[in-house]
Amino acid sequence: MIDFPYLSSIRRRNHKKIIMLVVDGLGGMRHPDFDKTELEVAALPTLDSLSSRSSTGLTIPVMPGITPGSGPGHMALFGYNPLKYFLGRGVLEGIGIGADISDGDICARGNFCELDDLGNIVDRRAGRIQSNESVKLVNLINEIELTNCDFEVYPVMDYRFELVLRGSGLSSEITDTDPQITGQPPGVCLPAIPAAQRTADLVNEFVHGARKLLKRSGSPGNGVLLRGFSKLPDIPSFAESYALRPAAIAAYPMYRGLAELVGMEVLKCGTSFESELEVLEGAFNGEHDFFFLHYKPADSAGEDGDFDNKVRRLEEFDNYLDRIQALDPDVLVVCGDHSTPSFLAAHSWHPVPFLIKSMYSTSSNTEFNEKTCSEGELGMIQAEMLMLTVLAHADKLNRFGA
Amino acid sequence: MIDFPYLSSIRRRNHKKIIMLVVDGLGGMRHPDFDKTELEVAALPTLDSLSSRSSTGLTIPVMPGITPGSGPGHMALFGYNPLKYFLGRGVLEGIGIGADISDGDICARGNFCELDDLGNIVDRRAGRIQSNESVKLVNLINEIELTNCDFEVYPVMDYRFELVLRGSGLSSEITDTDPQITGQPPGVCLPAIPAAQRTADLVNEFVHGARKLLKRSGSPGNGVLLRGFSKLPDIPSFAESYALRPAAIAAYPMYRGLAELVGMEVLKCGTSFESELEVLEGAFNGEHDFFFLHYKPADSAGEDGDFDNKVRRLEEFDNYLDRIQALDPDVLVVCGDHSTPSFLAAHSWHPVPFLIKSMYSTSSNTEFNEKTCSEGELGMIQAEMLMLTVLAHADKLNRFGA
Repeated sequence: MIDFPYLSSIRRRNHKKIIMLVVDGLGGMRHPDFDKTELEVAALPTLDSLSSRSSTGLTIPVMPGITPGSGPGHMALFGYNPLKYFLGRGVLEGIGIGADISDGDICARGNFCELDDLGNIVDRRAGRIQSNESVKLVNLINEIELTNCDFEVYPVMDYRFELVLRGSGLSSEITDTDPQITGQPPGVCLPAIPAAQRTADLVNEFVHGARKLLKRSGSPGNGVLLRGFSKLPDIPSFAESYALRPAAIAAYPMYRGLAELVGMEVLKCGTSFESELEVLEGAFNGEHDFFFLHYKPADSAGEDGDFDNKVRRLEEFDNYLDRIQALDPDVLVVCGDHSTPSFLAAHSWHPVPFLIKSMYSTSSNTEFNEKTCSEGELGMIQAEMLMLTVLAHADKLNRFGA
Repeated sequence: MIDFPYLSSIRRRNHKKIIMLVVDGLGGMRHPDFDKTELEVAALPTLDSLSSRSSTGLTIPVMPGITPGSGPGHMALFGYNPLKYFLGRGVLEGIGIGADISDGDICARGNFCELDDLGNIVDRRAGRIQSNESVKLVNLINEIELTNCDFEVYPVMDYRFELVLRGSGLSSEITDTDPQITGQPPGVCLPAIPAAQRTADLVNEFVHGARKLLKRSGSPGNGVLLRGFSKLPDIPSFAESYALRPAAIAAYPMYRGLAELVGMEVLKCGTSFESELEVLEGAFNGEHDFFFLHYKPADSAGEDGDFDNKVRRLEEFDNYLDRIQALDPDVLVVCGDHSTPSFLAAHSWHPVPFLIKSMYSTSSNTEFNEKTCSEGELGMIQAEMLMLTVLAHADKLNRFGA
């Protein structure tokens, strides 16, 4: 939780309602072909109008120059230091597929790979075998029996799977078996600390068991590679820390998982933003006073390097805003977990625009984009501090100190 | 002190003189009725003209979204991290009335309250008894004798008083006796750590003694409630840390107390800013090279929710500036401990405008307000870092590193 040690003495419950809209990959950069960013090109009448009555600024998700993944990006927006509450690869992949992960479980990202007769890696992705084939392999290796340890293997997509070792006394301080190169055998899992010996033994037992079962399958995926061993960090509750009754509405499992991880109640919804909105409309007058909604398409278009499509996806988002404003939330936040400039076709380090609309917000902006937000009254702040300003706009923080 | 570990190796004494004018509650926000802030509406010819020759920016007193009290607000301006050097309620109330507080003393904020025959609290403020009555009660309970411990009770205002327990080996890690609700008896003071047992015993002894004496008084104030037990934090000297000879000139006891706490020399003055100015004019050519002056009326008007009056108080401040400029200080700073928008009728979290005028400052601003300062060359900085920039403008910092 945000490193403000007096939070519990100043937070305050009231009936004000907050909607936080996270536009994945919201920020962009000027594309050389257009000399404008996606936000600058997009026709965003509602965002622009909102902007003129909002407090605006930019968030730095992690540190200047650091490009965050979805995990750190969202953890920061929820008020958690993304370095302190780092989610390992195994945990994040597990969250992304909705795997059942409990405190103390060890998660790993797995690949089915192809090994030659000598046991050397020929292909780290086993010819990119398809999901329907790898599901069979997952079922196969779920039959392995480990010494005094339950586990579950989940299919992810194509050649990818997720391994979750369950139980107490396990340690994630062990080495990857995936050497990330071919022509040599998978690594033996080693403990980085003495207390991790048993976990390393279990992993090696799993790898050998998988090799035995997969060999017989006749699939090119005749071995497994594991990396990113990690467990859930000890995460203080978002609800308790901020004295909120938070609800998360997200079409994608990754974001539902992240919200659940910090202790939000995840509301059921379909696979589109449209269906997220319907759930919001149904739940808005209920018990919750904080709603996190996730809008994915802008990021996807940015990652595809498709400037025009990112523009359209932002315009589509803008079209939805009237329905959200019709709910008349006390505080409306539009922010992003990171930038995804289509020129880069990837996440980036660029600071991310945000706006906060409440009865206390004011602005002279007439447009919502990277440049206007850089001149906003709230300045450039660490993303993990955004929640404090959001709470302030909802009258949910008392004065600090006399 | 500012967390710059090399400060002692780069600070430099010289003859340059700094005047820091702290306008309490300086910042505001756009009032919906006017669509302008108080600073934007006020006619501030001298501040505007100063601004065009100053470096400007905004300070964040504590963190984005956090609304500071006067204590944290001033500690930050003096260069102290307001979380690290937090002043408890008891200490701050004591400072506010000029109580004599030494290292190790335990301070508490007290209320005279009304208890029924069963000892339950009927009224936490004893019918808001007036100062003249509570002074008598204070005299009464100053007669209590505690086991091996001196103490002093000071009247504050109306039903409020301040308790200072003196001596060594005392601990502030004890619980409040004020439950902050009625219908139940005052709490017993409990130690939060074993080493605080003796202090808790002394507090309970005091509470019982007070009950016995007050019962006989016939006043509705027949009991006491104590909260905010705290002691002075260990505060490095402002004078030594910055190699300055600082003087504080403040009409209100709270700000004199804060200045004394950090080790400034507090100069005697009357109860108006006019009298502060006279003291400044008399002392300016003396030994001091740093003068802190405090201007209170803008905050008071803001707290009253009186937009017009805050505008007038800012204009009044502006009128005084010519006299200050006539002293020709090498560095003139105008800043605020926090914002007090009259729309909120309270302190707020909004960043606070500041200007630094020296031979090294430049600006293209033609007005001094929240918006122009947000575009100022010094940007938005933590208030606790302001002093470094002030020293830099006074040539009082050498280069860091070769």
